[in-house]
Amino acid sequence: MDDLSPSLVTRITGVIHKQIASRQLSLGARLPSIRSLAEAQGVSKSTVVDAYDRLVAEGVITSRRGSGYFVAAPTAPLALSDIGPALDRQIDPLWLSRQSLETPDDYLKPGCGWLPPSWMPEDDIRRALRAVARNPKSNLVEYATPLGHLPLRQILSRRLGELDITVAPQQIMLVDSATQAIELLCRFLLKPGDTVLVDDPCYFNFLAKLRAHGVKVVGVARTAHGPDMAAFSAALEAHKPRLYITNTALHNPTGTTLSPLMAHRLLKLAEAHDLTIIEDDIYADFEPEPSARLTAFDGFERVIYVGGFSKTLSASMRCGYICVRGDWIDALIDLKIATIFSSHQLPAELVCAVISDGHYRKHVELIRQKLAALRGRTVESFERMGFKIGVVPQAGMFLWCELPGGRDASELAKRALAEKIVLAPGNAFSLSQSASGFLRFNIAQSQDGRVFEFLKRALG
Amino acid sequence: MDDLSPSLVTRITGVIHKQIASRQLSLGARLPSIRSLAEAQGVSKSTVVDAYDRLVAEGVITSRRGSGYFVAAPTAPLALSDIGPALDRQIDPLWLSRQSLETPDDYLKPGCGWLPPSWMPEDDIRRALRAVARNPKSNLVEYATPLGHLPLRQILSRRLGELDITVAPQQIMLVDSATQAIELLCRFLLKPGDTVLVDDPCYFNFLAKLRAHGVKVVGVARTAHGPDMAAFSAALEAHKPRLYITNTALHNPTGTTLSPLMAHRLLKLAEAHDLTIIEDDIYADFEPEPSARLTAFDGFERVIYVGGFSKTLSASMRCGYICVRGDWIDALIDLKIATIFSSHQLPAELVCAVISDGHYRKHVELIRQKLAALRGRTVESFERMGFKIGVVPQAGMFLWCELPGGRDASELAKRALAEKIVLAPGNAFSLSQSASGFLRFNIAQSQDGRVFEFLKRALG
Repeated sequence: MDDLSPSLVTRITGVIHKQIASRQLSLGARLPSIRSLAEAQGVSKSTVVDAYDRLVAEGVITSRRGSGYFVAAPTAPLALSDIGPALDRQIDPLWLSRQSLETPDDYLKPGCGWLPPSWMPEDDIRRALRAVARNPKSNLVEYATPLGHLPLRQILSRRLGELDITVAPQQIMLVDSATQAIELLCRFLLKPGDTVLVDDPCYFNFLAKLRAHGVKVVGVARTAHGPDMAAFSAALEAHKPRLYITNTALHNPTGTTLSPLMAHRLLKLAEAHDLTIIEDDIYADFEPEPSARLTAFDGFERVIYVGGFSKTLSASMRCGYICVRGDWIDALIDLKIATIFSSHQLPAELVCAVISDGHYRKHVELIRQKLAALRGRTVESFERMGFKIGVVPQAGMFLWCELPGGRDASELAKRALAEKIVLAPGNAFSLSQSASGFLRFNIAQSQDGRVFEFLKRALG
Repeated sequence: MDDLSPSLVTRITGVIHKQIASRQLSLGARLPSIRSLAEAQGVSKSTVVDAYDRLVAEGVITSRRGSGYFVAAPTAPLALSDIGPALDRQIDPLWLSRQSLETPDDYLKPGCGWLPPSWMPEDDIRRALRAVARNPKSNLVEYATPLGHLPLRQILSRRLGELDITVAPQQIMLVDSATQAIELLCRFLLKPGDTVLVDDPCYFNFLAKLRAHGVKVVGVARTAHGPDMAAFSAALEAHKPRLYITNTALHNPTGTTLSPLMAHRLLKLAEAHDLTIIEDDIYADFEPEPSARLTAFDGFERVIYVGGFSKTLSASMRCGYICVRGDWIDALIDLKIATIFSSHQLPAELVCAVISDGHYRKHVELIRQKLAALRGRTVESFERMGFKIGVVPQAGMFLWCELPGGRDASELAKRALAEKIVLAPGNAFSLSQSASGFLRFNIAQSQDGRVFEFLKRALG
């Protein structure tokens, strides 16, 4: 039907919408009969039938058998919370997520943790949508199998080989995002009262998530080459943690990468203290040359590998995955079924369609090149304003910058928000709250002149 | 590229796949140069370039700068667990989920909890995929807002009005499924050691989920019109439960529906004992005429409403939702961000596209008619075999059937599985394990002659 006369049907639904909005048709009022509206509007009766069907589907009107169509209850008005961000919320690990997710499109987001939409492979996704729509083998209606779409797991198995990670497709479980992967693993591994190690600073949502799990969290300072090994060792002795969650490569927020030497030492300590490690590798595709992975060294003895596509492919159709030792898979499947029953099949097929096309490799290569081109001059601009950048990352989107003159990042973030700029204050990432003088910038989101103009003015 | 010469590119990737499979090209071997393969196969060089790009994307080959293309590591072989179901697993709440999800397509699934794929609106979904692909306003790459796609929440707000549930869009949170909705609410409301009431029997995954949450679960017998009210009252007195999870309408597995009288009594008891209730209404669209909803009576004082589209629209692109009192939304958003960061945007837009089209109403009407047409004769056939059906449901897909002669449903289910038939034994649904003589049948999945043939033989 929508292939025949969409514009006519849309015109008729528009007429009714307008009459309701202007109170010509009020709540409970009977709509014109199909014949009379068709005559009045000069369209066929079937066009009006289709338009009324659509309005019924939208819930705008209802039909009563034998007596016609009536205006249904109106939608309740929007609350302010749907329109604007709260300006006074205390800055905590969730503050930044909410500012980044909730602020309208006219806000600048140099503190945001993802790339601008224009950097994402939208054309490839549209092509994948069309391909999945026309492929008679697409599974559009049934649940995914417990581990998820096998062709995607086979591709992941091969791709991970490039990081020297040997993993069979049946050791890979698809889930709906890397965040959900870590959520499931926390449910799998932790009980309230356990202790978990994180980097300080670390991805702020680790802190929010672990707080929600009721576990004790201990931070270990992050150096240029990985966690401070003396502090890490001392924390193992003192707190007997069950788990360590980390980004090995292109760590969020510092952009630093674990060296092979540190990886080896860390795994020796982990073994001695029976520590399990979640290696969250969602920035893998930003690396031009792969660095050392804990999972590659460890071979799934005690390291669990987590990846996803929200940062390089799409955050609208999310797909993450867990790679784990074979003898844990069965219990993980049980927990996945109990908590979410099944992960999304269609997004997995779409991700599979996008990445099995040569375009995706070119797309991530292009992202790397664009970031590389911007990184140097962004660093230069920030340094000119007085920021100190201890380690300039080799790749990725983040710059971890120390404010000049001991200024407070949270204060600055609040001022910025009033000017519709979302900054990422350091303490949102810091368990010890020792990063009040830092901001995390996203290179790709910091190119608007108003960001620099604001910073210059605020710091001047 | 895929629009120009997909068959040629596919032919070339096929040639390479075959040479690798037959060991003509072994691990690490260099592939023919682009020019020589183009000449040998009579295709253009750009076709070979595209084919090699695709093979690189699949991880089948790798490229080394300046030195050509090489065969990458092969995929590890499939484990048996990827191919066939385990036959010896003990029947527990997870057993049935795994049999239903893991068994191959040639199994019959009269015990399964969803409709056959041929009943689902696949054409509408293909149309929605094309519509979303061509709509320039589709959000294909960015995170959803914390509450999710506003147009869908507006439609839900209007549709719920038809159940006498008055809920504003800003009280509705989209999540990735009704199961995830309940998971999030359990995280929100419960702590280990709390007590939760369920119906006995109830949806088996409630039992698996609550077990995973470490709470105490108490069952209340389900009667034809709702929970046994004396037992419900006694359980409130004795166990001081925090929460009751139930299907009000078309209860799984019994197909029974709460009467308005019972709804009113139940809410009075809940108020007196400060009990929170989750009304899981995923079978709403199966009802020809809406019955009483606890949420409609309660107005979000203590009832939380959960819905979803996996049963009537698609289990491949899942979308569920939570309707809750306005003053709980903010804390729920925080928990959603901490646990999954954001729900899927694209599936929400696809669901929105499907249900805002008049076709969806016709589709669910057709499902209701088909089930109504099958229900009578299926009941008759089962009764002829000696099954007892206490309450024949007014709608929905389930029949809760007592086996003749005190036979054990689990034994029967194991025998059936050996003949590639998945049954749903009663005790998977029963906390008290008092339903060993019952099976849940799915009317739509029970029409194959082999199901009746097996049952006659097994019961004969």
